Amino acid sequence: MPRFALAQMNMSSIYEENIAKADYFIEKASKEHVDCLLLPELFTRLYFCQIEDYESFSYAEERSNSKTLKHFQKMAERFQIVLPISFFEKAGNCFFNSLVVFDKDGKDLGLYRKSHIPTGACYEEKFYFAEGDTGFKVFHSSCGNLGIGICWDQWFPETARILALKGADILMFPTAIGSEPILPFDSMKHWQNVMRGHASANIMPLLAANRFGKESIGDSSMIFYGSSFIADEHGEIVSSFNREEEGLLYKDFDFQKIANERQTWGVFRDRRIDLYSPILKKDDTSI
Amino acid sequence: MPRFALAQMNMSSIYEENIAKADYFIEKASKEHVDCLLLPELFTRLYFCQIEDYESFSYAEERSNSKTLKHFQKMAERFQIVLPISFFEKAGNCFFNSLVVFDKDGKDLGLYRKSHIPTGACYEEKFYFAEGDTGFKVFHSSCGNLGIGICWDQWFPETARILALKGADILMFPTAIGSEPILPFDSMKHWQNVMRGHASANIMPLLAANRFGKESIGDSSMIFYGSSFIADEHGEIVSSFNREEEGLLYKDFDFQKIANERQTWGVFRDRRIDLYSPILKKDDTSI
Repeated sequence: MPRFALAQMNMSSIYEENIAKADYFIEKASKEHVDCLLLPELFTRLYFCQIEDYESFSYAEERSNSKTLKHFQKMAERFQIVLPISFFEKAGNCFFNSLVVFDKDGKDLGLYRKSHIPTGACYEEKFYFAEGDTGFKVFHSSCGNLGIGICWDQWFPETARILALKGADILMFPTAIGSEPILPFDSMKHWQNVMRGHASANIMPLLAANRFGKESIGDSSMIFYGSSFIADEHGEIVSSFNREEEGLLYKDFDFQKIANERQTWGVFRDRRIDLYSPILKKDDTSI
Repeated sequence: MPRFALAQMNMSSIYEENIAKADYFIEKASKEHVDCLLLPELFTRLYFCQIEDYESFSYAEERSNSKTLKHFQKMAERFQIVLPISFFEKAGNCFFNSLVVFDKDGKDLGLYRKSHIPTGACYEEKFYFAEGDTGFKVFHSSCGNLGIGICWDQWFPETARILALKGADILMFPTAIGSEPILPFDSMKHWQNVMRGHASANIMPLLAANRFGKESIGDSSMIFYGSSFIADEHGEIVSSFNREEEGLLYKDFDFQKIANERQTWGVFRDRRIDLYSPILKKDDTSI
């Protein structure tokens, strides 16, 4: 059975420190016989989208020429571990919030560009990122078919459903989420419940890896709430961190057994695709 | 603020007893100033779909000529309460698992026919019911826009999302679910998690009303697991029954406040309808 892990990490303003921390968890996961390790979203930097700053575009890297990707490709091969790596991508005249998956032999399994881009106080992603143009992607790795979305993608049942329809065995979401300084919300439970819904509705496990701790950029600051978790195929949380822990969670999954249950349950048989076209509208009240 | 209630009930083999029990809860709800009461699926009978029996088709009623509907229409008006009523519908050469909503003045707000029809041991609905042909429906009642699905519909994120896109303030599911005699599952938590996912992803409250207790039909028997619940707009369960309680749960909802939060959160703004066409396929792995 493949073993899946996530790392919950506190990020620094120093790129090299973040790389070193990720390396530490990759090596640690390898020792624990982990087959695939999920790191948080944009883990090589502070969450620069907290403010709109033209200087931060300098963090972006071209996929074919990325120091970050080259490094983790080597790490994947060296430690024989599947690594989905979130990075800030420059591509021609566009910038994307992207992710590449490296298989255990270091093979590049493809690129995904975050589809749903948030904006609002402390999450100014529409300033930096174009909406992803790859569509949703399942990565066919040596330890299973990985259905991966990025952060805000996790709030949309459509993301999870499409990944399931594309043959995912497991859903994975690198994330950077925390306080809403302007809104009176603590969204932690809400955030978990939405993803527990994806796992249970699609009858497949789910991992969400978040950063934690306070980050200040200029006059702005926010607190990321950690609470990374692994949910089983019924949406039950089987392992989780609190809001301030750093570390690794892992769990083994029998994808064949889960696929059998998914088949037995019959929801994919009974979907009414002839009735679902309203999902292709933004609004269906006024028509 | 409108007050929403659900009744969890144990059903009898005698139609009149079930009607009397529903009446009891309607009157009780009215005394508690409930604006809308949700009763379980097909509550006037034992869950006859437990077996395939041609005799059971005799339970079906034509909408325009239904003793059951006429009765509850009068009850709605008499007790000034909105009543979604689940019933076994005969329509021409077809039979449906249907629902009509009566407003406080007894006005018929429309018909919904269950879209997703299950089958399998103890849930032989495909034997009785044609797939619903109405599409998903939001009922515009005097206490809010009611997005109502029926039982198996509740397992599909598409149901909830489409009801939200059609302007629902609240999601409601009359249900009959319990043991899986042939499968090694207890699906109760799974069942709750899927619907908590709908509530949280669409940022609106949800009610699920189930029957409970053992029912035997011929040589077959099964146990319905109750566990009816009310979830808030973050998917947290705010009120619930255990597996063997009979009674009424209710909760007041400020739909304007919830709508404000839904707007603030931005998920409906950021949906990528240009990427969702795979949802209109049964499978997207082989293409």
